Amino acid sequence: MKLKPNWISGFVDGEGTFYVGINKQTSMNIRYQVLPEFRIVQHKRDIKLLYAIRDYFKCGVVRINHDDRYEVRIRKIEHLKNIIIPFFEKYELQTQKKFDFIKFKKIINLIDKNKHLEIKGLLKIIEISSQMNKKDKISIKEIKKDLLTRLR
Amino acid sequence: MKLKPNWISGFVDGEGTFYVGINKQTSMNIRYQVLPEFRIVQHKRDIKLLYAIRDYFKCGVVRINHDDRYEVRIRKIEHLKNIIIPFFEKYELQTQKKFDFIKFKKIINLIDKNKHLEIKGLLKIIEISSQMNKKDKISIKEIKKDLLTRLR
Repeated sequence: MKLKPNWISGFVDGEGTFYVGINKQTSMNIRYQVLPEFRIVQHKRDIKLLYAIRDYFKCGVVRINHDDRYEVRIRKIEHLKNIIIPFFEKYELQTQKKFDFIKFKKIINLIDKNKHLEIKGLLKIIEISSQMNKKDKISIKEIKKDLLTRLR
Repeated sequence: MKLKPNWISGFVDGEGTFYVGINKQTSMNIRYQVLPEFRIVQHKRDIKLLYAIRDYFKCGVVRINHDDRYEVRIRKIEHLKNIIIPFFEKYELQTQKKFDFIKFKKIINLIDKNKHLEIKGLLKIIEISSQMNKKDKISIKEIKKDLLTRLR
């Protein structure tokens, strides 16, 4: 299965997700971990396609998502920064998802400069990520409250 | 907005539908109307993209689907036969949706030969369409029963 880059771009416009999770991580000084992820979820009948996408990007893993759905996902910052972001800069998204991509790119840049390990930087990341796809708004609010308290 | 054909192919793999409706139509001799349709449904925030797809194919209409969702749809047999089918033969689908496309193509060919106006041809079309995407299986069963009775 040989995929064309523009086909991948169109498929991602339909099926891809740029996601930034913020998880509690008490072992870290800042107490929260930023987990950016690019993923495509498909029914298991198209699992070969997920492997073909992984092979195209030469990074990422194919894992079960839930029930009969599988995902190809890329989480490593270096892969996101050096492979995924340049790809979508070249093969541009056409739906409103491109604005998620732009925010995702900003967050990867901040992480790359270690800003996610400082309260101010983390607040900025949370601010941007809260405007992306669906989010647990209450938990975001709580994290912000906690960080702002510690900033004083 | 200038769309690349491979982008469209990838986007349709995610978001497009090849659909064949079978409707009761008492004014027709055969009593059932075959309604093939190619469509892409999107949230209204991406309505411009639907118009861009219509402009790319130079056929079809953009209409409301339901609530805040819109669709670009192509129903005319000549457009499906001369524009949509050749397009996806050239820019191939990569997901299992390609098998829906192959069945869709078979049905368009049968309609093009007026087979949908004969009971045997219509039964063949119903048989193929029942293996495509989701269908109201009970209604298909009833139509088949009716047609088979009239064939005797």
